[in-house]
Amino acid sequence: MTDFWWLNPCKAVDAEAVAQANARQQQLTKPAGSLGQLENLAVRLAGLQGRVKPSLEQLWITIFAGDHGVVAEGVSAYPQEVTGQMLHNFVSGGAAISVLARQLRAQLEVIDLGTVNPALDLPGVRHLRLGAGTANFVQGPAMTASQGEQALQAGRDSVLRAIEAGAQLFIGGEMGIGNTTAASALACALLDCPVAHLTGPGTGLNAAGVSHKAQVIERALAVHGAQRGDPLQTLFNLGGFEIAALVGAYLACAQQGLPILVDGFICSVAALVAVRLNPASREWMLFGHRGAEPGHRHLLESLQATPLLDLGLRLGEGSGAALAVPLLRLACDLHGQMATFAEAAVADRPA
Amino acid sequence: MTDFWWLNPCKAVDAEAVAQANARQQQLTKPAGSLGQLENLAVRLAGLQGRVKPSLEQLWITIFAGDHGVVAEGVSAYPQEVTGQMLHNFVSGGAAISVLARQLRAQLEVIDLGTVNPALDLPGVRHLRLGAGTANFVQGPAMTASQGEQALQAGRDSVLRAIEAGAQLFIGGEMGIGNTTAASALACALLDCPVAHLTGPGTGLNAAGVSHKAQVIERALAVHGAQRGDPLQTLFNLGGFEIAALVGAYLACAQQGLPILVDGFICSVAALVAVRLNPASREWMLFGHRGAEPGHRHLLESLQATPLLDLGLRLGEGSGAALAVPLLRLACDLHGQMATFAEAAVADRPA
Repeated sequence: MTDFWWLNPCKAVDAEAVAQANARQQQLTKPAGSLGQLENLAVRLAGLQGRVKPSLEQLWITIFAGDHGVVAEGVSAYPQEVTGQMLHNFVSGGAAISVLARQLRAQLEVIDLGTVNPALDLPGVRHLRLGAGTANFVQGPAMTASQGEQALQAGRDSVLRAIEAGAQLFIGGEMGIGNTTAASALACALLDCPVAHLTGPGTGLNAAGVSHKAQVIERALAVHGAQRGDPLQTLFNLGGFEIAALVGAYLACAQQGLPILVDGFICSVAALVAVRLNPASREWMLFGHRGAEPGHRHLLESLQATPLLDLGLRLGEGSGAALAVPLLRLACDLHGQMATFAEAAVADRPA
Repeated sequence: MTDFWWLNPCKAVDAEAVAQANARQQQLTKPAGSLGQLENLAVRLAGLQGRVKPSLEQLWITIFAGDHGVVAEGVSAYPQEVTGQMLHNFVSGGAAISVLARQLRAQLEVIDLGTVNPALDLPGVRHLRLGAGTANFVQGPAMTASQGEQALQAGRDSVLRAIEAGAQLFIGGEMGIGNTTAASALACALLDCPVAHLTGPGTGLNAAGVSHKAQVIERALAVHGAQRGDPLQTLFNLGGFEIAALVGAYLACAQQGLPILVDGFICSVAALVAVRLNPASREWMLFGHRGAEPGHRHLLESLQATPLLDLGLRLGEGSGAALAVPLLRLACDLHGQMATFAEAAVADRPA
């Protein structure tokens, strides 16, 4: 199956739409720059959508879930069966992202890439069963190349469905007990950064738990460190099925021209992998929030990303990105609907 | 007319609703604390609204506008007729706050407390005509006690209309060329703080303009400094009609039990005056954003306020508060609609 599709070129941003949107911003009835980040956001979306007045009515959210072999090392505060239980909660409407998707009128897709219960069969969930979770990456690669490529393709397939449905913005979310450990290991390898900088409490470890988690990551890096220079192999060595699917989804978005709103720590690690594999994909990424996980700040700086929100979130599921959607929509509304100085007969200040 | 109504007690927060909302938060299907600031927000709103599951569907926004005599000192980048022009823009639907109010399904009220054009008569605007703008406070008090009390009452009257209409959240906005100068002077007097800490570019002064503005404020403080200990007289000496109206509105909200979402720098100064006059009013204030005006950070710290957004906004009009409304609504939706661990049959972590 290998055709290395993830290396194909990304769609170019529409420079003409950017120029026109910038010109429009200067004419709106407000002091220049007074809408801060929202002005640049509207202009960027104009370039990504190739229209002077962008719109984000059609929103698509995919949750990618998978289990992690490294949980055998005792790195999570929660039991592993929670991954499957939360899949049920996502499609039943009771999870945070279910509530947010409903309120935001988003299409919500839930994909099980492989959990510890291979018999799991939930109506409304796409079960891909790449394996009963990843292997414990302290002992060897988390996944085979075949599993990794299937996960990338699963992300891409989801994006193709989103585009078919008319999506104007893509949010990827994740669920997987143990996945901050995988994400931290992956980020440390790619950024060549001390483990302590990128390892945190995840969903709720205490200080001793964080220290143990850091030791587990150190062991994993010792096993796989020689391949740090190869982002794809490093993803397969240290990632999770859901992280690989996010990477595939982000790259497919950039290739197809669908703007991405990146969620928290784990999604940002997937974004980093995507940018390392195909740097032009960065243009298609907007960042929803800075999460509570301490390493997220460092990761966002590495990606030169300015997130919209900073609310101390550490839930995952795509929830932080979803919470930022109204700001993106309002940025588009302001950009598209405000009167110009000429239309409103308001005096601009002397140039 | 003086009955000192602004000193009347504020409504008490419902401690029972707070306790019940806190208990509910602990049972929702997410790691405890993982929704960060939004959890505390939902719990606070429960206490303010006196119901375990708060709701913010009914939103009311009042823009208070007025002109400022201190503009004669050359403290603004914009000509003074912009105040009246923007009043027209607010009711015509072309201003930022008009777009936001429409998208958020808010009731928008526009009150002209007194601009330099006393003949201004715009359909949809309430013209109160307290004066042709305030007096130049470098030479004497900005307003008489009678004007000040009328402005306070105008804010209160607006809140009473909001409550009559079923409002569940109140946003006050402001418009008035020169009003960051008044707000900075007022904040310096009340906080006894160096002028440089609280004086910034407003809607767009350059460095020389900011320096001149600081000198004007120094002169004003020299004139009125002896009355610093009296917050009401200081408001009348250094404030604006729209700032006094905001103070009256916030105090009426706290007395009547209507939660307040405070906007940017100028509104935060009004909030500070309200808290100095009647400290219990602080309980009823939520803060929408930290604006670009440098002094806003200091002011928010003085009020022990943690704003929701930090987007580099410096527009006023209530726009930063309006932009935060979807976050408040989603916080309520998450709090009210997420499943509990028991409902969803999801394992919580061991206690």
